[in-house]
Amino acid sequence: MEVKEFMDKNNYTLLADFYELAMGNGYFDQDMQDTIVTFDMFFRSVPDQGAYAIIAGLEQLVEYLEQLHFSDEDIEFLRSKKVFSEGFLDYLKNFEFTCDMWAIPEGTVAFPHEPLVVVRGPVIQAQLLETMVLLTINHQSMIATKANRICYSAQGRPVVEFGSRRAQGYSGANLGARAAYIGGCAGTANTLAEKIYGVPAVGTMAHSWVQMFPTEKEAFDAFAQTYPHNCILLVDTYDVLKQGVPNAIATFDQYLKPKGIKNMGIRIDSGDIAYLSKKARKMLDDAGYPYAKIMASNSLDEFVIEALLTQGAKLDSFGVGERLITSKSDPVFGGVYKLTSVERDGQLEPTIKISENISKITTPGFKKVYRFYDKETDKALADLITLHDEEAPQGQDFEIFHPLYTWKTRTLSNYTVKPLLERIYDKGKLVYDLPKLDQIRHHAQEELDRLWDEMKRFDNPQDYHVDLSQKLWDVRSKLLKEHGKASSVKKN
Amino acid sequence: MEVKEFMDKNNYTLLADFYELAMGNGYFDQDMQDTIVTFDMFFRSVPDQGAYAIIAGLEQLVEYLEQLHFSDEDIEFLRSKKVFSEGFLDYLKNFEFTCDMWAIPEGTVAFPHEPLVVVRGPVIQAQLLETMVLLTINHQSMIATKANRICYSAQGRPVVEFGSRRAQGYSGANLGARAAYIGGCAGTANTLAEKIYGVPAVGTMAHSWVQMFPTEKEAFDAFAQTYPHNCILLVDTYDVLKQGVPNAIATFDQYLKPKGIKNMGIRIDSGDIAYLSKKARKMLDDAGYPYAKIMASNSLDEFVIEALLTQGAKLDSFGVGERLITSKSDPVFGGVYKLTSVERDGQLEPTIKISENISKITTPGFKKVYRFYDKETDKALADLITLHDEEAPQGQDFEIFHPLYTWKTRTLSNYTVKPLLERIYDKGKLVYDLPKLDQIRHHAQEELDRLWDEMKRFDNPQDYHVDLSQKLWDVRSKLLKEHGKASSVKKN
Repeated sequence: MEVKEFMDKNNYTLLADFYELAMGNGYFDQDMQDTIVTFDMFFRSVPDQGAYAIIAGLEQLVEYLEQLHFSDEDIEFLRSKKVFSEGFLDYLKNFEFTCDMWAIPEGTVAFPHEPLVVVRGPVIQAQLLETMVLLTINHQSMIATKANRICYSAQGRPVVEFGSRRAQGYSGANLGARAAYIGGCAGTANTLAEKIYGVPAVGTMAHSWVQMFPTEKEAFDAFAQTYPHNCILLVDTYDVLKQGVPNAIATFDQYLKPKGIKNMGIRIDSGDIAYLSKKARKMLDDAGYPYAKIMASNSLDEFVIEALLTQGAKLDSFGVGERLITSKSDPVFGGVYKLTSVERDGQLEPTIKISENISKITTPGFKKVYRFYDKETDKALADLITLHDEEAPQGQDFEIFHPLYTWKTRTLSNYTVKPLLERIYDKGKLVYDLPKLDQIRHHAQEELDRLWDEMKRFDNPQDYHVDLSQKLWDVRSKLLKEHGKASSVKKN
Repeated sequence: MEVKEFMDKNNYTLLADFYELAMGNGYFDQDMQDTIVTFDMFFRSVPDQGAYAIIAGLEQLVEYLEQLHFSDEDIEFLRSKKVFSEGFLDYLKNFEFTCDMWAIPEGTVAFPHEPLVVVRGPVIQAQLLETMVLLTINHQSMIATKANRICYSAQGRPVVEFGSRRAQGYSGANLGARAAYIGGCAGTANTLAEKIYGVPAVGTMAHSWVQMFPTEKEAFDAFAQTYPHNCILLVDTYDVLKQGVPNAIATFDQYLKPKGIKNMGIRIDSGDIAYLSKKARKMLDDAGYPYAKIMASNSLDEFVIEALLTQGAKLDSFGVGERLITSKSDPVFGGVYKLTSVERDGQLEPTIKISENISKITTPGFKKVYRFYDKETDKALADLITLHDEEAPQGQDFEIFHPLYTWKTRTLSNYTVKPLLERIYDKGKLVYDLPKLDQIRHHAQEELDRLWDEMKRFDNPQDYHVDLSQKLWDVRSKLLKEHGKASSVKKN
């Protein structure tokens, strides 16, 4: 299979929590290195209390796996920690990735408790991946999900990601721009993100451009001369309505109108955007520029944009920075990576983690996920998590249970069904063709089109049904009982 | 000067907002490429409404500047955008960094509106740095500041950074661990952060270790056998008080007590940590392990830790993950990079950005910062921002003004004074010896010791005085008046 050329030249093999290596050494010491296990990555809740997430980051996970190895320098460093046996260091030196892996493709909509990545393989290997599986998928899923919310609030107007300067590190900026594009953004301010990933990079001027010239008008004129076809003037360096917009209009009159150019615009980056945009719109219209665009920036997010548009702000596009690139209102995507089964006597035996916090109890077993779509509307109806060897129902009426209130059921009929997890690795060999970024973005758009609008609200969005198959339910109940935490609700 | 070996093998020259290049091309087009300017990086408010920030990230800024260049591939890519003149592309191809730069050393305490980085040089160059100056300093200053708050709440107990899995990208994890260490953390879970930066990496076991064995007791026994001297047992996989702690005690009895080992411990990762830790402490004490340590993890931050300790939780150390590595409660450090002067007729002429938002008005001019310390207590008294060529007062009584309420003044006497900005680059040449990470961390600790305790509270911390010199004040007033926004308060 083709692997894209790596952008990132660093070796992230040691970007692993130290306990992964400490446990690895322990398993080696206990002669358990060949024990086969399965791990699931899943998340427990959607950021910002949304109904769904858009999953991204698989490409970077694959990049990491393709270069996974311990260099001599790594081994030397680990030896210096004085906690690893020479046998284990030797194992790492000869490390070869032989796991199986399934994952939900990038751009797919997913819900809490669904396995997004499933790994099966020798325990030392499968455990070692924990940090990077989580880091890659958590980060980009969070940004793609946030970007989607912001784009949704903009009601079709283009949103450009402007956040590099406030990103949490280089990859926060670069991969953040990538994920924002998957989530629906039209482009980024980050030039490198276009070079690496093909996210369109755009940008015109900062306040400094205006300050560089004796007057704002001279600054605008100079810009219009250099960029007659990309002339978006930043109008808030001194005073938007008294200077910025009048100067912009004068520049348009002088340099663009005579050439018949119509794709000019202004950007407002401070003040009350609702008020200023309405006034500016009127000034532009009155001056004969109904087609001049108004872009807003300045600490925007989906809540601010929704409020601005509700108040009738006259805006054509948005530049969204820090609140997108850090997912400021909820900057953690809480994916976890949990052991779900251990091979004992040739059988994968399901394992569970009980917890003092109910929400942290895991769903045991080596699993799969299916999604049901209504044949008539093509909308997603429900998801079903099953054991790995279960087949989905093939068209017969199918009863699903409310995920929390299991006495509440619903019968599906007239549906199509598809598995969500794709095979990515087969015994360490990449068997998946990584889609191109535009395909991923397109896939996300299709996925979103197949969701009911009621799920897209920011406040109290409609829940989506994610059910466990009867077999899986029984496995979980049995384990809970064994640990003295019998489930108090019966499914049947 | 010695530059440390780069960890990061990527070339981040194009990690620049596209407008920086668009403006560069414009300046080139306007024949302004040799115009000398100054830029300041500063921030407007401290995250989490704290009183001060700890600045970090300079080393990464220097790394970037030392490798700043446009490869042939970069030029080819830029050409494909079809907006740059061949002359400008040629300029980039032969790009040589020739700016002067001053910066506040890493680990230094700083306050809003103080220049943290000052750049002087040709406008195209100085403008091009904007994104990376901000990205490097914003990110690490945010994490160092957050880490310091969390360590302060722990009242001397060690805090270990556990957040890689929830970090916003690779550098979020790696540089986040570095910054957390500067801010006072004792270590990190991220193995790579030790290899690259020397931040001590630690870690023992995940829940999966416990699940891998038929019983929790067997899992603990196996761990104690492999790691008798590093035996921190995770006790919440099934039930902390009914199983976890009793099993841990049994393991200690069997494998550690006979060897006289005393540095064992347990970790609690879910449930009510206050309650569980008190019960667990009593169980350990009663079993003859008063020296066994209790570590807590699970969505901690400075507010949770403060509350736990107020409630008498019996805890010896903390593992802090997502809320530290993303600075969750305030995940944006809002540093900005603003043009402060432009050379006209051989003189640096101060520039200002007015704004609809008062707080966004910039302080003009090429500047310096001085800090005053009380000779008796050695505590920091106030900072003074001056024009670059101003000397600090040398011991005579000195009247400073409240930064907002300028009618409120205070007279400093019996003080020492030192400049905060160090020279980093002289005409593009690195002239600064980058300190080692442990020196930076030590410097931060010294800086914190020189702050009054009243500034360290989380709620309503005491303000610190940052004043403008009379000359600088006059420059700002003059510019505000010129732009029809005369300052309504007179300083004198």
